[in-house]
Parts: sequence; structure tokens; C-alpha cells
Amino acid sequence: MIGAWATALLGVAACEAAAPTGAQIAAIGNGRAVPACTTCHGPSGAGNAALGSPRLAGLPAAYLEAQLQAFASGRRANAVMQPVARALSPRESEAVATFYSREADTAPAANVGIEPSTFNLGEQLANGGRWTQQLPACVQCHGRGGLGVGANFPPLTRQPSSYLQAQLHAWQSGMRDPGPMGLMAAIARRLSERDVQAVAAYFSAGAPIRADRPFSGVPNPPPDVGAVSPPGSRRIFSPPPESAIPHNEFGEVVRRGRDIFDEPARNASAYVGNRLRCSSCHLDSGRLANSSPMWAAYVAYPSYRAKNRHVNTFAERLQDCFTYSMNGKAPPLGDPVLVALESYAYWLATGAPIGPNLPGRGYPKPLRPAVPADYSRGQRVYGRSCALCHGGDGAGQDATDGSMAFPALWGDRSFNWGAGMGDIGNAAAFIQANMPLSQAGSLTDQDAWDVATFIDSHDRPQDPRFSGSVASTRAQFHDSPDSMYGRRVAGKVLGESSPAPGGRLSPKAAE
Amino acid sequence: MIGAWATALLGVAACEAAAPTGAQIAAIGNGRAVPACTTCHGPSGAGNAALGSPRLAGLPAAYLEAQLQAFASGRRANAVMQPVARALSPRESEAVATFYSREADTAPAANVGIEPSTFNLGEQLANGGRWTQQLPACVQCHGRGGLGVGANFPPLTRQPSSYLQAQLHAWQSGMRDPGPMGLMAAIARRLSERDVQAVAAYFSAGAPIRADRPFSGVPNPPPDVGAVSPPGSRRIFSPPPESAIPHNEFGEVVRRGRDIFDEPARNASAYVGNRLRCSSCHLDSGRLANSSPMWAAYVAYPSYRAKNRHVNTFAERLQDCFTYSMNGKAPPLGDPVLVALESYAYWLATGAPIGPNLPGRGYPKPLRPAVPADYSRGQRVYGRSCALCHGGDGAGQDATDGSMAFPALWGDRSFNWGAGMGDIGNAAAFIQANMPLSQAGSLTDQDAWDVATFIDSHDRPQDPRFSGSVASTRAQFHDSPDSMYGRRVAGKVLGESSPAPGGRLSPKAAE
Repeated sequence: MIGAWATALLGVAACEAAAPTGAQIAAIGNGRAVPACTTCHGPSGAGNAALGSPRLAGLPAAYLEAQLQAFASGRRANAVMQPVARALSPRESEAVATFYSREADTAPAANVGIEPSTFNLGEQLANGGRWTQQLPACVQCHGRGGLGVGANFPPLTRQPSSYLQAQLHAWQSGMRDPGPMGLMAAIARRLSERDVQAVAAYFSAGAPIRADRPFSGVPNPPPDVGAVSPPGSRRIFSPPPESAIPHNEFGEVVRRGRDIFDEPARNASAYVGNRLRCSSCHLDSGRLANSSPMWAAYVAYPSYRAKNRHVNTFAERLQDCFTYSMNGKAPPLGDPVLVALESYAYWLATGAPIGPNLPGRGYPKPLRPAVPADYSRGQRVYGRSCALCHGGDGAGQDATDGSMAFPALWGDRSFNWGAGMGDIGNAAAFIQANMPLSQAGSLTDQDAWDVATFIDSHDRPQDPRFSGSVASTRAQFHDSPDSMYGRRVAGKVLGESSPAPGGRLSPKAAE
Repeated sequence: MIGAWATALLGVAACEAAAPTGAQIAAIGNGRAVPACTTCHGPSGAGNAALGSPRLAGLPAAYLEAQLQAFASGRRANAVMQPVARALSPRESEAVATFYSREADTAPAANVGIEPSTFNLGEQLANGGRWTQQLPACVQCHGRGGLGVGANFPPLTRQPSSYLQAQLHAWQSGMRDPGPMGLMAAIARRLSERDVQAVAAYFSAGAPIRADRPFSGVPNPPPDVGAVSPPGSRRIFSPPPESAIPHNEFGEVVRRGRDIFDEPARNASAYVGNRLRCSSCHLDSGRLANSSPMWAAYVAYPSYRAKNRHVNTFAERLQDCFTYSMNGKAPPLGDPVLVALESYAYWLATGAPIGPNLPGRGYPKPLRPAVPADYSRGQRVYGRSCALCHGGDGAGQDATDGSMAFPALWGDRSFNWGAGMGDIGNAAAFIQANMPLSQAGSLTDQDAWDVATFIDSHDRPQDPRFSGSVASTRAQFHDSPDSMYGRRVAGKVLGESSPAPGGRLSPKAAE
């Protein structure tokens, strides 16, 4: 299509002194040092596996433009692209980036057979990560199916395997700029050569999801990975690998529970009012120690909770997640959604001893810092370490297909005022132990308290227990220095203008 | 009172040749070799601790008469009572036994201080037993508070400690007839001298029940007590001692669960339709291995059950006990009764690993015997080994205060046709592993299958899943060689004349 177009446009370009359009650059170059993009990237911008050239069609313009700038400045090294990028004017860069961003993505999935164990490894890394090395799933940032999220997390699916491998190698060797927050350089260096090949092969094949994900089931880390275990430190429980979910009626329910856990908006839409995931706060699908793992929670209930002043079963505890964190509606006890989630948590706990104090439960509480937590310092931490993914407005980001990629931290798409994350201490603990993804532990205790204070100083849906006034609701349910509910921030009392709780997803949003 | 009476009657007795009345014998003897009973047993038959003479007032006539016969025949050795009993005519024995059975029981509780550890030991043996030695709780046969059950299990409460000790010693030494089924001789021989003193002191003090029973918490037996452990045999889990139930909000709910478990008719009367106890089938308050202990059940759910063809949570499994075994009504999910029972089971499982195959779960299945199970042989086993407690009519027996002592095995006061015990294999397994109490393992596999067949060949309340006809209900829910439902026994089709299921206790019966 570009070819036909190009011929038609050639004359026009030649007789006009005006800057070439994006389409012209793609088809014939800019008339100076820049050759036609199609030479290497294929007639429709679908990439060229043999040359290791990526597909460009359908990628975000801002991402493409940023890459051209990176080539021009040398932050991204490439013998072909560096001179090309330097030979494009800023206006030409923008034009060609915009052109390709609007082109239909027709790149085919690589059609080469992948050896099953390689496929499984790639699928595991892509969709499950390897948390023993602080490797989140690729899709956690690049979106479901590797479809891409915003300008910073480009699509991976159906990029040539050769291209993907080359980029990972470039990050490993320092030939490519470490990127925002240095995320990809650090991640690439944790991958073995076999990992690189497997994950590249998986995405080049189109990131197929199988109904029964045959994850290799990487177990949790032993305690204090990479550190000297203090004497008396306790062993961390390992849940069984996903591959051990039995193939029977019980196993079916466990799988259903896992699917709800990972995508409640899709699989339990009647009960959720936002698009957070259970696994947004319980990382690695509820498996990761010190990230409120489900195996530790399961064996800790029934338990008395100060929050509602009675003994809660595990099922009732699950209901609360829907009411508050998911800003939805609690499934009735006995509902298949609750039974499936309880079965999944039970199965994850296989072999764990019953009791409330399993090492790895909840989040390790950071020390309350000497300097009182501060909104402005928190705002700076947020800008530096959180906004890339969660957005400057805290609203999170969606993947290209509309599915939630990064959860909203405040606003009407986030958890409501009754959720545990609305407690600054709890949020600080989660953040310090787990954020940013792949860089857990990089924030100081002070950073964690500051940024938690900043996040929890924004409005969000009303507390479902709202008792008529913000003041009385605070007195009843938020009487803690760790709750900002009912406190004045930037001239407004938090909770006074909150949207009603219990949002419901539209059928579209549930997808 | 007897004293005043006796004086008045003296002249009457002297001038009439007729046999003396019971009152006369008690007050002045029978005019031949028999002295006044009051001499040793006190003016109102309340016993005499210094002499070691038991109270007689309020004891069952049949029991008292049987003791006089045992003294007369020498099966019970006692220098004073043997000549007395021999000097009473059968009519006189009956008269004096009837007289005392109708006398008001005014015996006081012993008012001597009991050293706390002795009290605790006595209370444990009395109310909890010591199952490592196959010692059921004394109250299991002698009724709540040791108030007595029928003619075979006399009251123990407020008998002089000296008397109770002497009887246990007499059984230990063989000086007293081993009694029905040899139960008491075998039990007495398992008691240490300290046990004897403790349990005698406890009952002489009136068997006081404290709200928070400070049981010493005897753990479960190691596997194969008294036998050589086969290689590879697995360790049996021990639940924590009752004394470890915490003194906080959670502990309160656990205690409530234990109380419901031990006395559902009293503590969950809205949901039970008979007076069985959870601990009727789950011995030692759900602690005993191989008696469907709660700790093993707790860690086995959620689980798929063929009975209802879906994955059941533990709470749903508990509901089934109410629907079928208790012939009642399932408490709704989330009901405090279910939460308390679930909390109790959870607490019993403290430290147990999650999973369906904990050693000691359920009942060990007896081998299906070579000779097919037979009703008539089962009837003989029943008469020999079961009827003493469960009654010839299978209706169980109540304690003197009306509380259930021995559960009904069939009839309208028993579990209904939907209960697990209606499955012959299941009943045989329970019986072989646990019955008769204190003599578990004494029945052969063949005995167990025969007697289970006999028991399950009697009618009982209808299956709540009744689908319009016995034949269709059998086809749907009882299509097994181990169910007698819908089969013809003694000319009647079982299930065709069953009382409606879901009985409700009258307020009186619930006490």
C-alpha cells in the first residue's frame, strides 16, 4: 500500500520545497540522507525478521519519536539508525512517527515451531515473571499479551525475535540507554541467554495464552536472597507450582480462582467497581512473600479483625476486598466467585502450617521514619519513582486493548476510602517492600512513608461505611494518624467530595 | 425423716408377720440378720464418707437391686454387704432398692479443698478422658455431670471419694465383678493411683463445670500406641491442648465452637433436629485421630465432594452435618454457629499442614470381609457389644437430667437417611476403629460390617433430598451396595415409612 502511494507522491515531493510528509519519508526517504524506511522495516512497516528490524506500524508516535531522538543522540546505538535519525529534522521525525503510529498493524506472528520447554519458559517470564530475581512478568508493564502501554512500554507482541533479542542484549551490554528509571537495563541483566531467547520467541509468536497456562512454577525465594541469613531467620514457605494444579473438578475451581485473582474485572465483573486486580497488591498472583501472599492469609483465618470487631472467616475477609479495595459489591457467601478464590488460596497454601504467623505474611512494616512524613517530599518521590507507570494523575494506565495495566492509585477508578491501602502505614509497607516493580527495596523507609502520605492525600470513592458525615465516619472508622480521610489537604477536606462508593463496571470496561 | 418414720413404724412391723417395707428395712433392718441401712448409709441415704459408704438415695432401683444380687453372689466382695445381701429375700431387696430410688438425693458435695492440679486431672478424666489410653470421659457413659444413665451407669456425682476410690481399686484388683462387657475393670486398670484419687475427688466434689475448662490437654496418641510402628508409618498430628485456647476475642469464638461441638442441642438448638452431638461421631471433641478429627477435616477443605458434585468449602461441609447427621436445618453461611465451629476446627488444626491427606483423617477403612455382611450376625454383635449403651431399640439413652448420653442409632431421634453414617462402609469404618468406647479395635472387620449392616437396616428420618419416591431417591443418591435405603428388610421397604426429615427440638428437649 505504501509502495503504490509512494509512486503517486514522488512527483509531488520533488516539485515542492515543503518538508516531506511521514508517508513520503517512509516510502522514499526525506530526499536527503534518509532512505525509505520500508527498505528495512518492510512495505507496511511490519518489520523484517531476517534483518532484525522491528515493526513500526501501530506503535505509539511518542515512543517512535523518542527512539529517533535516542538514535540521534547516541543513547541508542545502531549503525543504520543513528545516521538516519540524525538526518531527520525534528519535524520529519514527528511526521514519520505519526505516520507509522496510524498505520494498520499487519505484522504476522512468527510461524516457527518453538521447542515446548522454551515456550514454557518464555510464557512464564512473559506472563508470570520470576520473582526470585525481582523479575515481574513482562506483561505487567507491557500490557496483556504484550500489546503495549502508553508511550513508555511499547508493544512486544509480533516483534521479530531477532529484534527483541538484540534489544535485550543491547541493554545487557550497555549499548542501549537504560531507559526510564533504568528499568530495562536492570531487568535484562537478570536474564540468562536462554531466558532472552525464550521470551523473544514467545512474543514473536504473538504471545499466545493457553487456557491452562503450563507455568514452570518458579518457587518463592529462600529468605534473604543475596544476603546473609541472620541466625534464627525463618524459612519462607513456597507455594506449589501452577503446573501442580490437579486436572480434576477441584483443579478447575482452583484455576477459576486464579483467573479471577488475576483479572477480576473480566472474571468477576458483577462484584467489582474498578479495574484493579487482586494481583495489583498481592504480587505474582498472590504467591510472593511479603506482598500479602494468599498462602499466608489463608492459614491465618478465621481471625479476629479490629476493622469490624469480630472473628472473620477467610470468605468474609475476601468479601471485604470486593467492598473496599475493588470498590465493588461483596459476593454473597457461597457465591462461586468466593468459593473459587478461597479454593485458589487454599491450594496455594498446600503444605503450609495452619496459624497466623507464617513468615512472609502481609508486608514487612518499615520503620516509622524520624522525620514526619511529608506531602511535598512524597510528591517528589512519586514523580521520580511512580508516575512513569501510575501516571502523573494517579489514574493508572491501560494497555492498548483497554485492559488495565497499571492500577489507579487515587480518583474514582481506585480503591475506596475503606480499603486497607488507605492506611498510610499499610501503603508504606507495601510500597517499601514491593515498589517500584523490579526495584523493590530501593526506596528508603522515609521515601515510602512520604509517598504513601502523598498518595493517600488524594480523594477516592467514599467509604461504604459512610455514616452521614465525614467527621462521624472518621471518628468511627478512621480514628488513626495513618488515615487522611476527613483531613484538610490543599484547602479541601478529604472525603467531602468523594464519588459514591460501589462503582459498577460497564460491560465494555469489564473487558 | 427416716428416723421419725422408723419409730412410728416399729410397732407396726413388730405386730405384723408381713415382709417389711423398704422404708422399714432402711430404718430398722428386716428384723432378721439385716441391720438398718441408715447405720452406714446415713439417715437419709446420703452415704458416709468416713465409712466409705455410698449414697443410695436417688439411685436407680434396678441398679441398687443388681448390686445387692452381686453382693449376695459374691461377685462384689464386701465384708459388711455380703452377709446383708444374703439375708435379704428377693422381695426385700426389691423393696429397699425401690425405697431408696425414690428418696430425695440430699447428699452434699464434698467440701474439702482439692489441690488445683489434682482437680484439673480429675476434671480432664471426667469430662475429656484420656484417649491415648482409650479412656473415654467418665461422663460419656455416666452422663453429664456424672448424674447417671439408666440402670447400668450409676451416678458418680457426690459419692464419697473414699467409696469411688474403693470401687476403682476393687476393679483393679479383681475384687469386683468386671461388670457389663468388662468395661469398668478394663478402664480402672488403665488408671494410675493419682488418676484414681483425682477422678474420685472430682466427682465427690459434685463434678463442677467451669466455663473455661482448664483441661490439661492430653495430646493425641503417637501412631500405633502399644504396637511396633511399621517402617514408614507417619506421625499423627497433635492438636494443641485446650488450655492453649487464647484468652481474647478469637479464643471466645473458639470456645463457643467447642461448646456447640460438644452440645449442639443445647448450644445450636435452632439448627438441630435430634440430640446427637458432633462429638458422637468425632470423638474426644473432634480431637481423636481416626475418628474423623476436625483438624484433619479442616485442612482438607475446600474439596470436591461426589455427594453434591461440586467443590465444598469447610463451611458448606459443616452445613451438611446439620442437614443430615443432625437431622436439622443448615445454618446459613456466615451464621455465628458456623463461624464458631469453623474457628474451633481451625484452632484444633494449629500447625497442621494444608492438604487432603493428613494421617488420621476420617476413619481407617476396614477390609471388606470375605463373607458378605449379614443382618442376623450383625444383630448378635449388636446385642453383645452395642445394646448396653445404645439400647436394644437403638434409641440411645439419656442421662438422669434428660440430656443425651448415648446417641440414637436409628429411629426418629437418629441421623436421617442422607447422613454419612447411613453408608454401611462408613459406619463399619467408624465402628471398627472406635467402638465400643474404651474397647476400640475389639470387633473384627466382619463384626463391624455385620453390625453396620444391622444398624443401617432400620428406618430413620427421610432423606432431605427425597425426590418424590423412594425408588427415584435411591437411584439419585443411594445407588450403592452400601446403602440400605429403598431396600426391603423384614417385609418393609426402608424409606417408605420414614418420618419427615428436619426435626426440630422442643425447648425442653434442647436442654
